Amino acid sequence: MDDPMTRLDVPEYDDLPEDLQERIDEETEQAGFTPNVFSAFGYKPSHFRAFFAYHDALVEDSALEREEIEMLVVTVSGVNDCLYCVVAHGALVRIYAQDPHLADQLATNHRTADLGHAHEAMLDFAVKLTEEPGRITGADIDDLRVHFTDEEIWDIASVVGFYNLSNRLATAFDMRPNEEFYTLGREPRE
Amino acid sequence: MDDPMTRLDVPEYDDLPEDLQERIDEETEQAGFTPNVFSAFGYKPSHFRAFFAYHDALVEDSALEREEIEMLVVTVSGVNDCLYCVVAHGALVRIYAQDPHLADQLATNHRTADLGHAHEAMLDFAVKLTEEPGRITGADIDDLRVHFTDEEIWDIASVVGFYNLSNRLATAFDMRPNEEFYTLGREPRE
Amino acid sequence: MDDPMTRLDVPEYDDLPEDLQERIDEETEQAGFTPNVFSAFGYKPSHFRAFFAYHDALVEDSALEREEIEMLVVTVSGVNDCLYCVVAHGALVRIYAQDPHLADQLATNHRTADLGHAHEAMLDFAVKLTEEPGRITGADIDDLRVHFTDEEIWDIASVVGFYNLSNRLATAFDMRPNEEFYTLGREPRE
Amino acid sequence: MDDPMTRLDVPEYDDLPEDLQERIDEETEQAGFTPNVFSAFGYKPSHFRAFFAYHDALVEDSALEREEIEMLVVTVSGVNDCLYCVVAHGALVRIYAQDPHLADQLATNHRTADLGHAHEAMLDFAVKLTEEPGRITGADIDDLRVHFTDEEIWDIASVVGFYNLSNRLATAFDMRPNEEFYTLGREPRE
Amino acid sequence: MDDPMTRLDVPEYDDLPEDLQERIDEETEQAGFTPNVFSAFGYKPSHFRAFFAYHDALVEDSALEREEIEMLVVTVSGVNDCLYCVVAHGALVRIYAQDPHLADQLATNHRTADLGHAHEAMLDFAVKLTEEPGRITGADIDDLRVHFTDEEIWDIASVVGFYNLSNRLATAFDMRPNEEFYTLGREPRE
Amino acid sequence: MDDPMTRLDVPEYDDLPEDLQERIDEETEQAGFTPNVFSAFGYKPSHFRAFFAYHDALVEDSALEREEIEMLVVTVSGVNDCLYCVVAHGALVRIYAQDPHLADQLATNHRTADLGHAHEAMLDFAVKLTEEPGRITGADIDDLRVHFTDEEIWDIASVVGFYNLSNRLATAFDMRPNEEFYTLGREPRE
Repeated sequence: MDDPMTRLDVPEYDDLPEDLQERIDEETEQAGFTPNVFSAFGYKPSHFRAFFAYHDALVEDSALEREEIEMLVVTVSGVNDCLYCVVAHGALVRIYAQDPHLADQLATNHRTADLGHAHEAMLDFAVKLTEEPGRITGADIDDLRVHFTDEEIWDIASVVGFYNLSNRLATAFDMRPNEEFYTLGREPRE
Repeated sequence: MDDPMTRLDVPEYDDLPEDLQERIDEETEQAGFTPNVFSAFGYKPSHFRAFFAYHDALVEDSALEREEIEMLVVTVSGVNDCLYCVVAHGALVRIYAQDPHLADQLATNHRTADLGHAHEAMLDFAVKLTEEPGRITGADIDDLRVHFTDEEIWDIASVVGFYNLSNRLATAFDMRPNEEFYTLGREPRE
Repeated sequence: MDDPMTRLDVPEYDDLPEDLQERIDEETEQAGFTPNVFSAFGYKPSHFRAFFAYHDALVEDSALEREEIEMLVVTVSGVNDCLYCVVAHGALVRIYAQDPHLADQLATNHRTADLGHAHEAMLDFAVKLTEEPGRITGADIDDLRVHFTDEEIWDIASVVGFYNLSNRLATAFDMRPNEEFYTLGREPRE
Repeated sequence: MDDPMTRLDVPEYDDLPEDLQERIDEETEQAGFTPNVFSAFGYKPSHFRAFFAYHDALVEDSALEREEIEMLVVTVSGVNDCLYCVVAHGALVRIYAQDPHLADQLATNHRTADLGHAHEAMLDFAVKLTEEPGRITGADIDDLRVHFTDEEIWDIASVVGFYNLSNRLATAFDMRPNEEFYTLGREPRE
Repeated sequence: MDDPMTRLDVPEYDDLPEDLQERIDEETEQAGFTPNVFSAFGYKPSHFRAFFAYHDALVEDSALEREEIEMLVVTVSGVNDCLYCVVAHGALVRIYAQDPHLADQLATNHRTADLGHAHEAMLDFAVKLTEEPGRITGADIDDLRVHFTDEEIWDIASVVGFYNLSNRLATAFDMRPNEEFYTLGREPRE
Repeated sequence: MDDPMTRLDVPEYDDLPEDLQERIDEETEQAGFTPNVFSAFGYKPSHFRAFFAYHDALVEDSALEREEIEMLVVTVSGVNDCLYCVVAHGALVRIYAQDPHLADQLATNHRTADLGHAHEAMLDFAVKLTEEPGRITGADIDDLRVHFTDEEIWDIASVVGFYNLSNRLATAFDMRPNEEFYTLGREPRE
């Protein structure tokens, strides 16, 4: 099996604290394999707990649809050239949006995806907040208010922010997407 | 008093869940005032908990000195043009590094600060991981290994990542630094 | 069926000159479907002929392996955020390199692909020539000479140049990748 | 005489295939000297044929005026910092537009040239398609439609694309403009 | 005492021409210390005279308020990452605008400062003229005319230009802000 | 006659103070025409005096050859896309360097000019100091010391700085190069 990340040694599952093992077991059961980000974060258990607790808050207590969250993740990760997140969350876009092509479109260039006005505005904002956060002004938030509630806007910015964190850890240490992610949710050709 | 952030309404202290009130009380007691980031994150309690739990893990379980963490924060926040983080963590750099000038130097241009080779390498990496994460290669990590252990490198990248999240939330919603932060620690300690 | 491109009207197959119909027939027979770039270039037959003649010269009279050509195309197209070329030539990378994951790695960030030194140097050069052609100096060519003959270097630059043309036409007029390209070659060959 | 390009050896005229010699003879007769791009492309005859056939299609089957084509070339080549194309096509702008100053204005900064609205829009588009092709949207094409037919827009994008190819080959191999190009079409000083 | 600049040797006060000594005496009397830029420019007396004569013309013959001039300086110097000018002119902003926080806001991100529409427009223009002078068009000047007279616009551009010069000399030779500048004009803590 | 600049009204010669008229007379006699930058700076006499006094100090009290100064000016002005300075100082490069092609090479891309190592290093530094002044470090100055004395390095940085000022005023107000500059010095001297 490939290493979960190539630039730091990852501890063995058996050496991890029990609560990490439990979380990994759950993920493994659900996905049918252990997503490498869980093995990689085993590097530092206190950070594992914090990272996934934040992730869970973002997807469990959100005014956004899950497919919107994953669309944000893939778009941001495309801008940041983050292989792990593009491939792993690309699978999640295909699954949650039930669309086999949307993830590749967002990862390459969200302007080429077939989106409604609200999602266009959401992803334009995500790209600006990723590329040049200091240029965001009140007018950018007002533009979002045409389509989204304040809580949705908070959630959009939070997902964008969190994956600007996640992308940087994944690329710094070269976390590797599991092979399964490359094909999950793609339409089989006959 | 100034608003903690100008683009979203912030709930009253009295309306916050008890655990948030307790954390805010602790911070207020320690600082002598309530740092606005706590009031602002009251906007969404589940995210408040996740954000500060991650923050706490980064400063409490770290192979880095606290002053190194704050040097990273101010450098990254300067690159991202984030007023709240430059001013609030500027105060922390002055306090933890016991240096009244270092924060302004790092916020403006870390290349002008009077640093040893290890901290120069650390901050050069922080800037690259912030500005162009996709261009990080194994060689960048190897350069850090001249000065830092693997765990320190993990912690450096994690702090850089976390403030790339934090900077984006603070600028998206225009979180305002408390007045006190502008002057804290400016008089050199004897 | 989706339009081959969304921003200009494409002529009907029946209205195309005979030599274009013949070329389209060949491509359709080989691929099992008509790649949209052929329909789109039907917009102007004289340009259709010139574009595909150049393409053919690049792949037929080349000192490079076909998989190297396609690796260059996907890397360049990733830098230029060109959906058509990333998806269509991604399929060709999977097929010619007999590797189901390489295309997604190159499109996202060639620095994360598992490459030998020669291909690393080749793609670093391709990215620099794409992003900042005016900064190429003799030293960049000398770096390539460690791994490649002069003719190979000519061919590398020519492929990079040609897809800087191709990417701009495809994004200007929003050429759409055929659905088939998204999945072609994704199952590992045995 | 200067080398046509400094980074690869150029074959002697006598060693070129007959059809290349014929084309070079024509060009030499017309210009009074052999433009170095012809000698340089002699490096690989199959590419010579494809490159100049595409070039010929762009200028011979075009809805644009020849001076518009050359204005596009010089503007794009200025953005890409391509000496050969700025100097050689600068001469063509002076000749076709019958204006001794326009080429230097376009090469330096098309925003400083004295242009009508249509040409301003044409060159703004050319610069955007050159600098950030992935940010082109349907709105950019619609802006051009105020001044240009669909076929003209196709031709504009094609010229921009082709010189993004040409600029990259000329700078990669350091093709040198013939001395004659520097002064062709300039007003003689008395 | 710290060196006025770290990369070139600075002549002793006693070795300077009399007119430079006089100017330095005046500045020292006024500020209570000798600002390092005066000592640094002693490196070349003819340039000292020219630099400060231009500076004097900009502040003495200006249609702008002095606080506006200093706001421009700090904003431009923040964009150019110039430590000397951010710290020294930050003190002047605090003094002339009688605002202890404005300088840090402008140095970090003028979009986060509490400004009226005229000053917003002025600083947006200053940033554009600093970052991408070649993209300024007549429309940018017309936007300023909503708030400013022609002479004020001339003065704005002149201050922006002059500090683009000043920032480059200060960073090239690492001019060091005097310690006093870091705290001048800050509200005393009780 | 063309306006000296298009965005502000320029006072009549007869309305200028006597010392400005004298300077203009001298320049007109020397050049055979009045360079538009003198007419344009007549807009504000105190700035006229300061600007040209600084200019004079840079060319009259310099450790550099005059042709080196003009090479710096054209290179910097090319980076900043400044038409007036590229065209007017292009003429001066041709005259002082006695080379009819060097100016166009430097304005387009100094990496394509035929330069010795010292001038290559000088212009590489000029471009870096123009494009990203905050990234200059002591190592950049040390690289120059291989070829230049400290005073020459001061003068190089000063010329680069001054034309970063000059370029911004010329582009802000659209100063127009006199027609004569386009052709001056184009015929090689015998």
